[in-house]
Amino acid sequence: MGIVSGRPTLKDVAREAGVHVSTASRALNPATQSVVNPETLKRVVEAAERLGYRPHPLARGLRTNQTMSIGMVIPDVENPLFGPIVAGAESVLVEEGYSLLIGNADRGIEHAEAVIQDMIERHVDGLVLATATRDDGQLAAATSQGVPVVLVNRTTDRGDVPAIIGDDHAGITLAVDHLVSLGHRRIGHVAGPSWVSTGHDRRQGFVAAMERHGLYAGPDVIEEAEWYQVEPGAAAASALLERHPDTTAIVAANDLLALGCYRAIRSLGKEVGSDISVTGYNDIPLLDLMQPPMTAVRVPHRQMGAEAAATLLAMIAGTEHTRGTKRLTPTLVVRGSTAPPRTAS
Amino acid sequence: MGIVSGRPTLKDVAREAGVHVSTASRALNPATQSVVNPETLKRVVEAAERLGYRPHPLARGLRTNQTMSIGMVIPDVENPLFGPIVAGAESVLVEEGYSLLIGNADRGIEHAEAVIQDMIERHVDGLVLATATRDDGQLAAATSQGVPVVLVNRTTDRGDVPAIIGDDHAGITLAVDHLVSLGHRRIGHVAGPSWVSTGHDRRQGFVAAMERHGLYAGPDVIEEAEWYQVEPGAAAASALLERHPDTTAIVAANDLLALGCYRAIRSLGKEVGSDISVTGYNDIPLLDLMQPPMTAVRVPHRQMGAEAAATLLAMIAGTEHTRGTKRLTPTLVVRGSTAPPRTAS
Repeated sequence: MGIVSGRPTLKDVAREAGVHVSTASRALNPATQSVVNPETLKRVVEAAERLGYRPHPLARGLRTNQTMSIGMVIPDVENPLFGPIVAGAESVLVEEGYSLLIGNADRGIEHAEAVIQDMIERHVDGLVLATATRDDGQLAAATSQGVPVVLVNRTTDRGDVPAIIGDDHAGITLAVDHLVSLGHRRIGHVAGPSWVSTGHDRRQGFVAAMERHGLYAGPDVIEEAEWYQVEPGAAAASALLERHPDTTAIVAANDLLALGCYRAIRSLGKEVGSDISVTGYNDIPLLDLMQPPMTAVRVPHRQMGAEAAATLLAMIAGTEHTRGTKRLTPTLVVRGSTAPPRTAS
Repeated sequence: MGIVSGRPTLKDVAREAGVHVSTASRALNPATQSVVNPETLKRVVEAAERLGYRPHPLARGLRTNQTMSIGMVIPDVENPLFGPIVAGAESVLVEEGYSLLIGNADRGIEHAEAVIQDMIERHVDGLVLATATRDDGQLAAATSQGVPVVLVNRTTDRGDVPAIIGDDHAGITLAVDHLVSLGHRRIGHVAGPSWVSTGHDRRQGFVAAMERHGLYAGPDVIEEAEWYQVEPGAAAASALLERHPDTTAIVAANDLLALGCYRAIRSLGKEVGSDISVTGYNDIPLLDLMQPPMTAVRVPHRQMGAEAAATLLAMIAGTEHTRGTKRLTPTLVVRGSTAPPRTAS
């Protein structure tokens, strides 16, 4: 106990005192130490002295008017995509003594605005929003009230709010290049909703990647799903395959849409993979257990959440003034849902 | 607009004023109306007068010292089980003007205690805990500090804290009865961790249901998985099938364990369903898309979350003094992972 190599961190103090890191943070912050149990406070202060802990001067100085809570709004608490984003953000925030207030906006854009307003009224120190739409009214309220905001997973068209998102062009290109290398030429796209950046950007990425290979990517080989769920994906894939029965592969804009493609392909009496290849996007858990296991673009969601939280904390501390968009690089996980086409075209 | 049948609710006032229900709640609460924008406040008060809205007297009277936030602690934000529980709780809380502070305790029991303490220090009005262990130290802190607590999904052995859980005995009985009716006699159980109530109760339920049919359910046909995930499920199923190669069906204590059984059965070169039947528990999303689609006990998780929140609000309002456990009735969803055994025994 008490042996720490290098400059001691808040985590070391917490371990030494036998408390949670957020408790240690509050105990060492003059603005918040009144809420800490006196005995715990004494233990933390003694541990900090023993280890020679010094809080980061910039971060600490600006914390005095804070509630030490960050709000995060996600569009659908039941979509497995958001678990890793939340976990990544939380892992960073808890280290710095912040709590994460999670809001669920699954009742649409108006509800997202209400949840954001609710969090602002609760004086969160900043917001991480996974609910951005391309033309975004939600943000006006937050930014006009001076609350630091970072977008995650999706961004707006204006791009004037810091955002940590995936590189959708690069991701779709990985999927298209993989299918082309297998011999596919007649490839369709089941697109996401065009009013969110992921739907729009992946569609643009699909067209660009196809054209780079000299392949046709007109609007008739693209079908937009109403929302990122299995059933709308099945409906879009059915429409696409009815219009172009000779399609040999489908690039879906997310995994649930791709699972809808599975369903549509099976309802035609065909096999996913050997008859028609399908690629997903995000690589949510359990895709390796589907039949066939799904080839999917993997987005580093945990890292995305962690970087969004870190950017927000830097903005709160006044050490970050970027207004840019950071795009994280996806990878492709090849599994059994992609195979060479039955007949070379 | 403004036409409301029956006694007007807070929701009606919010709709009439064009604000979120939580904003309406704060506007009508003398203790919290200072945080509401004056123009919005005026609109809500006028809407309430116009509709003749009267707040529930008991609930309102006790709200004056409240932060109008409820903490909920879940054991793993990435487990798809908890999305519907959170969504169900949130749907009730938001109607009453509460915000939900979600904490993730995926780093084990000590972390759960720290997250609970953190929420208490933030003066949440009550806690919904999905992290209970059978012998539960977490609760001592919360209950000794006078914070109302409701358990959800799991409970403790003492059972002295209100809990809304699934009826695990009834659920496992559905699975066993289904397999027996198909002709299975040599049935094994991949159990969950025995230190949480779901693992313990489902195991007890398995033994009781088997014995009621006069079937053998000794410890050698039960294998406990280390944790509720796919890999530990595969390891447990492999051990079970190695010890008893003539097993024709496995009842798994949750869906991820059942997916592990799929993996173990395939690694023996056998087929799930036609060679060895498997049942899951919970019915998480996408099980219908597995190959074969999984037969599973379905637990009403959204209802579970909603009832836990409603119970907590009743405790806060002083209208509920139950200390009991409420068990919700599960159903069985039959899909392709269960079939008659190849050879009648």
